[in-house]
Amino acid sequence: MKHNFGAGPCILPQEVFKQAAQAVLDFNDGLSILEISHRTTEFEAVVAEADKLVKELLNLPSGYSVLFLQGGASLQFAMVPMNLLGDGQIASYLDSGVWATKALKEAKFVGNVNVVASSKDSNYTFIPKDFEIPADSAYFHYTSNNTIYGTELFEVPETNVPVVCDMSSDIMSRVIDVSKFDLIYAGAQKNIGPAGLTIVVVKDEVLGKIDRKIPSMLNYQSHIDNGSMYNTPPVFSIYVALLNLRWLKSKGGVAEIEKENKQKAEALYREIDRNPLFKGTCAVEDRSRMNVCFVMENPELEKPFLKYAEEEGIVGIKGHRSVGGFRASMYNALPITSVHALIDAMQLFEEKQAKAN
Amino acid sequence: MKHNFGAGPCILPQEVFKQAAQAVLDFNDGLSILEISHRTTEFEAVVAEADKLVKELLNLPSGYSVLFLQGGASLQFAMVPMNLLGDGQIASYLDSGVWATKALKEAKFVGNVNVVASSKDSNYTFIPKDFEIPADSAYFHYTSNNTIYGTELFEVPETNVPVVCDMSSDIMSRVIDVSKFDLIYAGAQKNIGPAGLTIVVVKDEVLGKIDRKIPSMLNYQSHIDNGSMYNTPPVFSIYVALLNLRWLKSKGGVAEIEKENKQKAEALYREIDRNPLFKGTCAVEDRSRMNVCFVMENPELEKPFLKYAEEEGIVGIKGHRSVGGFRASMYNALPITSVHALIDAMQLFEEKQAKAN
Ligand SMILES: Cc1ncc(COP(=O)(O)O)c(C=O)c1O
Ligand SMILES: Cc1ncc(COP(=O)(O)O)c(C=O)c1O
Ligand SMILES: [Mg+2]
Ligand SMILES: [Mg+2]
Ligand SMILES: [Mg+2]
Ligand SMILES: [Mg+2]
Repeated sequence: MKHNFGAGPCILPQEVFKQAAQAVLDFNDGLSILEISHRTTEFEAVVAEADKLVKELLNLPSGYSVLFLQGGASLQFAMVPMNLLGDGQIASYLDSGVWATKALKEAKFVGNVNVVASSKDSNYTFIPKDFEIPADSAYFHYTSNNTIYGTELFEVPETNVPVVCDMSSDIMSRVIDVSKFDLIYAGAQKNIGPAGLTIVVVKDEVLGKIDRKIPSMLNYQSHIDNGSMYNTPPVFSIYVALLNLRWLKSKGGVAEIEKENKQKAEALYREIDRNPLFKGTCAVEDRSRMNVCFVMENPELEKPFLKYAEEEGIVGIKGHRSVGGFRASMYNALPITSVHALIDAMQLFEEKQAKAN
Repeated sequence: MKHNFGAGPCILPQEVFKQAAQAVLDFNDGLSILEISHRTTEFEAVVAEADKLVKELLNLPSGYSVLFLQGGASLQFAMVPMNLLGDGQIASYLDSGVWATKALKEAKFVGNVNVVASSKDSNYTFIPKDFEIPADSAYFHYTSNNTIYGTELFEVPETNVPVVCDMSSDIMSRVIDVSKFDLIYAGAQKNIGPAGLTIVVVKDEVLGKIDRKIPSMLNYQSHIDNGSMYNTPPVFSIYVALLNLRWLKSKGGVAEIEKENKQKAEALYREIDRNPLFKGTCAVEDRSRMNVCFVMENPELEKPFLKYAEEEGIVGIKGHRSVGGFRASMYNALPITSVHALIDAMQLFEEKQAKAN
């Protein structure tokens, strides 16, 4: 049994793996989920149930559509401005990390971009808070959780312009008020399901306001009009997402998982703060519950600790190269027992070090 | 045991299903293929081997890149003109079916399109052959196999302009000379693997010739530069494609499977022609080996035959609504025993009819 702290694609519930494997062998009447047409009633039922569960788990108000797309969050970096940023307009972006930077870089291929604030100069160790969003922005874009730097923005910035949010790494980890957003997108490979699927939640009335000619696959409206079946969807990824959404619902939904996520994060940050060998890398008030970034006071101990942790079955905690040290990603499916295993390893390593000195 | 004649997503080899299910449970060291990072050495090895096998199986000359993308063939309808059709240029398209029509429709969102010929007026029952490709076309695009109508173009049209081909439904079913093409694309969900993956084979020198600003995810060059890992790839679909490519290689590669595909198609067309109850729908010289379209002389017998076939375990033969009747898709993984089962059903149905009259 491994403790998988990988940043994504990441751990999903063990029962989801079992059910998914079964469906690969026999989904329906002897046929594999990999060999059925997406136009079968069986698969249409999968998409309908996944749609219903996303709406239920996110407590979606009416007037929003849920889309199951391909291309990852990175394709959304381009689709958002293609669909929402008209000629001569300006879109406002908050630069809180590498993904935010990529999002705004792609928007620049399409139109004009205004960066409202950036914490790049301090290597994104905090999320800028005092900024103004020009009232004539076509939309305001931000990243709710900065996967690489371990910072998370829990409050939706106040503005009267449409709000677009990349929630790739914290969607469904905590209760949000969807009515504050006009478009939410997320690569599925953290809290939703496996890689190869992107979830988009879009307020219908925000679309159709600009007159760019948009190829059908890049036009949200074609996907809305065709119930995410404009073309062949990523059948297996959608099915596994459904299994995972069912699991989340059976756990009590987003409000319940949020409690667990808080407990997991509090326990690990407490140990990082207490343990004299370790320290967190970012502003305490911006600490992410999903990706916990930390380093060692003595960088020379990082390799030995990584090795020690691996011996304990702890995998995926090597930090991203732009931060170094460690990153423990603790998405919904990571059990609290894995967090305790990591904390135990930190404490035992501390004891070993004390003995060695 | 079902005989799965579905048009796609379609049957894959049974051993691929078994290996894929196993990897969902335990791909590497106790971890599921669904929870590993795409940046692990294990997954990098998967992509490298898949790349090598595509090159080997297609007998790729040097100077070509293989890409594993998302979005299906439908996203290629847009990416091709975005990357190859400059301002003020014209792209030539052959209109041989619904997919060809969609491809050229999407190209019109991007630039100027010239339709060299169309068989729309005869409901695409044949592939136009006498047409001219203007020598100043940015490229010439055609669909090698028209999945819906059951026609296939075995000869690459002669031209001096770059040739782009949608091979979604016949890639790797027969030997082709890749050096005649500048760009080949295919949704994986027929002969390559499961849905959620698109294969692109592109001649490197055809790129970079126009100066449109192309968002990174829509720019072939970013995917080439990053070895198909510009962003999170569809991990599981690529892995299953690899399993399937290994299977194809173990069968003797494309030349061997082509022999089988010929046998399967000849057997079924022979029965369609012989059996007085059935008739083919398209020009004999354009008959596809992948999708065999046929109807009944007496349309009232179609429902009873469909029902009878289903009782024999034959699924997926209902024709597309734009043709009606039946479509038996016989991709690489469909065993010849399934073709014999269909032929038997046709003969037994003929006998039953004879007795009833
Ligand atoms: C916040 C955020 N946005 C975007 C991305 C890019 O996602 P994808 O690889 O699906 O394009 C990631 C990937 O980890 C991410 O964490
Ligand atoms: C020849 C051809 N082109 C394109 C497509 C569309 O493919 P996708 O659904 O992957 O976008 C299909 C789908 O069956 C096809 O057969
Ligand atoms: Mg980041
Ligand atoms: Mg400390
Ligand atoms: Mg067609
Ligand atoms: Mg006949």
